[in-house]
Amino acid sequence: MIIILEPKADRGRVEAELKALGLWTSRFESHHGGAEVLLVEPHSMAVDPGRIIAVEGVADVQVPTSSHPRLDARKGEPILFGDLAVGPGEAPVLMAGPCSIESREQIHEAAALVARAGGHFLRGGAFKPRTSPYSFQGHGRVALGWIREAADAHGLRVVTEVMSETEVEAVAAVADLVQIGSRNMQNYALLHAVGSAGKPVLLKRGMAASVDEWLLAAEHLLAAGAAGVVLCERGIQGADPATRNLLDLGAVALVRHQYGLPVVVDPSHATGRRDLVLPLGRAGLAAGAAGLLIEAHPNAAEARSDGPQALSPAELVALGETCFPAASPPRPSRARRPPEGAAPAQEAR
Amino acid sequence: MIIILEPKADRGRVEAELKALGLWTSRFESHHGGAEVLLVEPHSMAVDPGRIIAVEGVADVQVPTSSHPRLDARKGEPILFGDLAVGPGEAPVLMAGPCSIESREQIHEAAALVARAGGHFLRGGAFKPRTSPYSFQGHGRVALGWIREAADAHGLRVVTEVMSETEVEAVAAVADLVQIGSRNMQNYALLHAVGSAGKPVLLKRGMAASVDEWLLAAEHLLAAGAAGVVLCERGIQGADPATRNLLDLGAVALVRHQYGLPVVVDPSHATGRRDLVLPLGRAGLAAGAAGLLIEAHPNAAEARSDGPQALSPAELVALGETCFPAASPPRPSRARRPPEGAAPAQEAR
Amino acid sequence: MIIILEPKADRGRVEAELKALGLWTSRFESHHGGAEVLLVEPHSMAVDPGRIIAVEGVADVQVPTSSHPRLDARKGEPILFGDLAVGPGEAPVLMAGPCSIESREQIHEAAALVARAGGHFLRGGAFKPRTSPYSFQGHGRVALGWIREAADAHGLRVVTEVMSETEVEAVAAVADLVQIGSRNMQNYALLHAVGSAGKPVLLKRGMAASVDEWLLAAEHLLAAGAAGVVLCERGIQGADPATRNLLDLGAVALVRHQYGLPVVVDPSHATGRRDLVLPLGRAGLAAGAAGLLIEAHPNAAEARSDGPQALSPAELVALGETCFPAASPPRPSRARRPPEGAAPAQEAR
Amino acid sequence: MIIILEPKADRGRVEAELKALGLWTSRFESHHGGAEVLLVEPHSMAVDPGRIIAVEGVADVQVPTSSHPRLDARKGEPILFGDLAVGPGEAPVLMAGPCSIESREQIHEAAALVARAGGHFLRGGAFKPRTSPYSFQGHGRVALGWIREAADAHGLRVVTEVMSETEVEAVAAVADLVQIGSRNMQNYALLHAVGSAGKPVLLKRGMAASVDEWLLAAEHLLAAGAAGVVLCERGIQGADPATRNLLDLGAVALVRHQYGLPVVVDPSHATGRRDLVLPLGRAGLAAGAAGLLIEAHPNAAEARSDGPQALSPAELVALGETCFPAASPPRPSRARRPPEGAAPAQEAR
Repeated sequence: MIIILEPKADRGRVEAELKALGLWTSRFESHHGGAEVLLVEPHSMAVDPGRIIAVEGVADVQVPTSSHPRLDARKGEPILFGDLAVGPGEAPVLMAGPCSIESREQIHEAAALVARAGGHFLRGGAFKPRTSPYSFQGHGRVALGWIREAADAHGLRVVTEVMSETEVEAVAAVADLVQIGSRNMQNYALLHAVGSAGKPVLLKRGMAASVDEWLLAAEHLLAAGAAGVVLCERGIQGADPATRNLLDLGAVALVRHQYGLPVVVDPSHATGRRDLVLPLGRAGLAAGAAGLLIEAHPNAAEARSDGPQALSPAELVALGETCFPAASPPRPSRARRPPEGAAPAQEAR
Repeated sequence: MIIILEPKADRGRVEAELKALGLWTSRFESHHGGAEVLLVEPHSMAVDPGRIIAVEGVADVQVPTSSHPRLDARKGEPILFGDLAVGPGEAPVLMAGPCSIESREQIHEAAALVARAGGHFLRGGAFKPRTSPYSFQGHGRVALGWIREAADAHGLRVVTEVMSETEVEAVAAVADLVQIGSRNMQNYALLHAVGSAGKPVLLKRGMAASVDEWLLAAEHLLAAGAAGVVLCERGIQGADPATRNLLDLGAVALVRHQYGLPVVVDPSHATGRRDLVLPLGRAGLAAGAAGLLIEAHPNAAEARSDGPQALSPAELVALGETCFPAASPPRPSRARRPPEGAAPAQEAR
Repeated sequence: MIIILEPKADRGRVEAELKALGLWTSRFESHHGGAEVLLVEPHSMAVDPGRIIAVEGVADVQVPTSSHPRLDARKGEPILFGDLAVGPGEAPVLMAGPCSIESREQIHEAAALVARAGGHFLRGGAFKPRTSPYSFQGHGRVALGWIREAADAHGLRVVTEVMSETEVEAVAAVADLVQIGSRNMQNYALLHAVGSAGKPVLLKRGMAASVDEWLLAAEHLLAAGAAGVVLCERGIQGADPATRNLLDLGAVALVRHQYGLPVVVDPSHATGRRDLVLPLGRAGLAAGAAGLLIEAHPNAAEARSDGPQALSPAELVALGETCFPAASPPRPSRARRPPEGAAPAQEAR
Repeated sequence: MIIILEPKADRGRVEAELKALGLWTSRFESHHGGAEVLLVEPHSMAVDPGRIIAVEGVADVQVPTSSHPRLDARKGEPILFGDLAVGPGEAPVLMAGPCSIESREQIHEAAALVARAGGHFLRGGAFKPRTSPYSFQGHGRVALGWIREAADAHGLRVVTEVMSETEVEAVAAVADLVQIGSRNMQNYALLHAVGSAGKPVLLKRGMAASVDEWLLAAEHLLAAGAAGVVLCERGIQGADPATRNLLDLGAVALVRHQYGLPVVVDPSHATGRRDLVLPLGRAGLAAGAAGLLIEAHPNAAEARSDGPQALSPAELVALGETCFPAASPPRPSRARRPPEGAAPAQEAR
């Protein structure tokens, strides 16, 4: 934001009032006798231009053109999944399950566990992005049927990842919430294909993405036709090997409190340590998250990926009781209205 | 940690059991027919070597020599300030006040405000580290008297920063908790001087310090004689200008839950945005913080530094009510025993 | 690397000899009377295990299983493009051209310029990854024909980016070197599709990729059938807004001198500043780069993307003269032999 | 920089001309019918405001107030050490020696080696900042005498680090160039004490310092009275364990080519790997460095710190021949004039 002062304004007094409004400003000097200007630093509070123009001595307030008008239009709106609303002002939701779908039995067992913990979504990967070409890449399409069946058997919704443009149709036919992984956050071909499918999308933040880049990726999805976007913070790249990634709850607070958008937190990938999942999950909700995405496995010793960070059944149930106390009984809908253009997610299947 | 297998061990089965214990391991290949070894990755859970040696097929467990034995010896111990205990297992404490001590009146007004909000420590800088040599550097020694007087008038303890070896004696004579700022976290001459003064120390994490480097700086303080160290996470360097710094609550959870040490969170510096201080303060406590360090100013418009991130009086009182509900009535001591060698902090003054 | 000592070894002396070999080591302590072990830190020199086992007191040396055997097998080999060899031991090559192919005329003009500057490859994007969905995305397939024609008219090879699995065939039919952008470095579906096309690939490093993750992405390409991989360092994410990205020439030196692989440097994206392209291009070559990838535009004022970092015609010619003095006369091939499985790149078209 | 357009300017055309000048700009929208403004992004080229005001349609150019006027005044000036000039436009200098001064004999042997390699400064630490309180901290004041004596015996100048305010006088009495380490870059008490001593200072960049913060630390030194500041890039914090630190040659190019200040590169600390010191040293000089700071040890096996990164005698001599071919014969001074206020460094001793 750029603030232009009136010719005879008392710059010191204007700066003091802006400070009181929560704005960091820096000064500029004209080379040609122009009006005095102040630049508002990006880490300032979001203040309505109307409040700034009201400050005595301010002649004009100039704001940057928004680069994500579609997101802006959805500020404060939850996303509906039948009678379940996810987002600002709604009770938080629990999405849980194993990293990979390893067998029909495993995912059914996981679904039973997630239901017991009061969860709302069953997660599990049919297609797995793996750093090494020689690691297990998932069972593929056949596993999509298994997870849908398991979720339906326990009244859960399905969130699962798509990695290839050629699999978008198959995944969108099964998932209530189509996941795009952090490595694909700026894979624009995939964003356009997934957006075109018209389902709600879970968009994980890239390892080095700024909040702005993350929102722009969501804008790509909406521009292509996505029914809605749930953002997911899962830890960004950090320099300290003591945790797997660096959980950025400042970004979560910003997305929730400044932009009014639904964002969930994945403390499992953020830390890579089973023992820190509960404290950081609670911290995520305190910062404003609309829900948690948690890795849990019926038997971590047998997990084909991410076993050390998967919660045991008992740990998941304990997390459910601590963080989602209201979730056990049937949840009445608290949704106010469907987001513009959001087809009823369940029926669209 | 390095795990050495028995000659005929089933490597796959050992790996599965270690995964179930929460350990990420990687394989090595001998060039000379030696025993098979596994390296435990640093972001694994801290597991007792006794549990690992019990796994069938494990011949030996080798652990890195601890680089901070004095800290290890204090695991789980709170630090005592008279009848107030700060640390693991204790109720969280509120440390609040302005960035700089600007006048006798201002700090008295601030102390009254902090007391009203249920705070335990009054903060305020007499010596200010400033990026520019041409900014206000604080009122110096005279302000030390003002803050002590103001704190005493409202039953508060004093936390204030020292920047120079030549001021250690003056600051330690006044402060209950001597603060070392993030820019000085690895200023070893200062660490030694402050440690020698024998008071408890608040050690802010450096902008790019790993958890291990932070703990080693605390070890320098203890080795020099500090009565105890309260660590303080205030945001590390991040690449996103949308927040002032990057609050690392994973590090807070690690320090609290793995190392059992007292750590407080400073959401004011972390975000630089008044509106995110409350959600991130709550998140900090959820992650395991022993308290919060908050910037508040009786009149932000007049603040000579950090005004845009300072809470207003009403905001501080609201934060006190939300985060420290038990703090308003007189707090009974919950301290179990003094840390080894800790002189009674209040009396030592 | 893990080093196991003989029962009666003098640990201090072994450590001293390893230090002299260039190894940083850390100590471990056995819980069960096992042999003493040393862990070699990852930033140590790459030393042949045979030299370590020869140190008196060393009983065994254990090395991590390589995660990229196909890359390892190509150590020291250049990649052939007809009579032009790119890689270790070869004269460096110049790849230059505009960010986007904006018109038939523009790319012909650019090709003439690149030839005049002694360049070997013409670059230019038909498909452009753009952070905002509302920016110019490139002219698409029609522009592929334009760039091929322009390159042929001036004796240049073509390097151009592919962003979608559905465009791989079209791009591979035209390009001598198929580019994968930094945002897609871990887009495994695209890596597999491009690898399957059997052409050499230019793989840009991801914004937050470690050298190891970068090499693993190259291994994905080779495992899928790529004729060869030229790595490209273009700056990673940094926290300082003074340069667009953070050029990591340490990674270039590592890739060249430790792994013996072809790597080129893109100083244009790294800095975003036209005036720093020449000094950083020269620095890249000094660090071991096999070539430079440079943005240049016949008329920067008209550039539809990245204009401020594009060199002017005169600047490109000056860079060619400074950095590629041998390139003006016809270059005799210095290639020793084709990499295993590399189809003649030009003929395959 | 903020650019204000004339009421009837063609914004598109102005933006095109600014692009051609090397400026990245972003648009703002007025809330009150004010003039159109453009903000110039910080990674743009430094362009003289006079060239911008000359663009048709530009009404005013506003520049940020410089935060380092004393540095600005020295743009393009070398620093004099007797007849040796260091800085822009001068031949590069070699500063070399061991990490720690370990004995009288060792530093004399090192001095002979540095002289043989064509070096200009002997480096070596009497006071060592160590991450662990239990590591070797240097021999202290006695070692200052040894290094002075050794340097004098071989016609070298001395650069050595000071860590404590209480040692400034002792170090300044001996050193031609007083070093401030990266951990103390924002230790303002030390900056003021060292500046007051009036000698030239070598200022290492902090692990997470932006170029701007680094320049402001130099401004602190000049404001306190330093005769001059030689900046030193030694690698900043990176996330990849494959190199010890992340060498930022973009910052070196910026400091040299935009600010016109003397900056040297320390490839030894940057990489921590002996085998990458030569390629990155050459890259540093290509990027614009005024010299190199190199760790070398007569016998790396006996080094008490940093042995694995220290060059052997033969390696240092080879580096001298490759990078400083002109240094072997006696160097005639190419200095034009002494920097303002710089006392003759040698005589002041």
